[in-house]
Amino acid sequence: MAAPESRMAKCVFCEIVAGRLPSHRVLDDPEFLGFLDERPVFKGHVLVVPRIHCDNLLDLPASLHAGILGRAQRLARALGPALGAEGTFVALNDRVSQSVPHLHLHVIPRRKKDGLRGFFWPRMKYESDDERAEIAARIAVAYAETSEN
Amino acid sequence: MAAPESRMAKCVFCEIVAGRLPSHRVLDDPEFLGFLDERPVFKGHVLVVPRIHCDNLLDLPASLHAGILGRAQRLARALGPALGAEGTFVALNDRVSQSVPHLHLHVIPRRKKDGLRGFFWPRMKYESDDERAEIAARIAVAYAETSEN
Repeated sequence: MAAPESRMAKCVFCEIVAGRLPSHRVLDDPEFLGFLDERPVFKGHVLVVPRIHCDNLLDLPASLHAGILGRAQRLARALGPALGAEGTFVALNDRVSQSVPHLHLHVIPRRKKDGLRGFFWPRMKYESDDERAEIAARIAVAYAETSEN
Repeated sequence: MAAPESRMAKCVFCEIVAGRLPSHRVLDDPEFLGFLDERPVFKGHVLVVPRIHCDNLLDLPASLHAGILGRAQRLARALGPALGAEGTFVALNDRVSQSVPHLHLHVIPRRKKDGLRGFFWPRMKYESDDERAEIAARIAVAYAETSEN
């Protein structure tokens, strides 16, 4: 998980964690840093990153699983009083569409009718119940062979 | 967290957990259930729900923080061998855009160039560095007053 110095020097988020690149911090504790995304979906869009370098979700040590979700929960609580948010969108791009290869959780303030509904539409349909059952079975079998970190 | 029977009877996901409504299960353990979203963003789109009723992210007990992320990590591992996924998108709609008021984490298989890039675009811009700093400060102050469950 901890990358060699030569590699960390190339990681933008490691640079932010180390204070060698600027950021607008909103939370800063021994395990995680939270700072504003520079190109927010909505203003107040926060990225939560582990201080140690983790490439992606597969790489996140078990010792940080509770912590990163807990930080998101606290942010979800904070964004109401801070910015009038009525809810939050919490998202993680794992490998595909992951713009920086240092795990980061997006926590985005939401309001009703804020226009952000695009992602989950359009939805697909399964062609048949057989297809649905087959896909579920494939995932279940592969899942049973995995473990958490 | 545990809702009275009269209320649970109205919660679709509590009905699925109880086996009174059908689902295509991919994981089933003492704390969580994972099943196919009936209208997937991509085929193999899984919803992970706690067995106990939690309305939303604010309501998720600390004892389940690590577990729900760990299940997502295992699914992220499984979706490669199961379906050829190259990554995953993990997302949670907290209150706004949350279609079922029983916390559920979306775990969606991704492939490069699968066309799913809409959500995070367009991005906004902060009008000034002062605005950015002010918003960060507001969140930081509110965050400091919160706690995890």
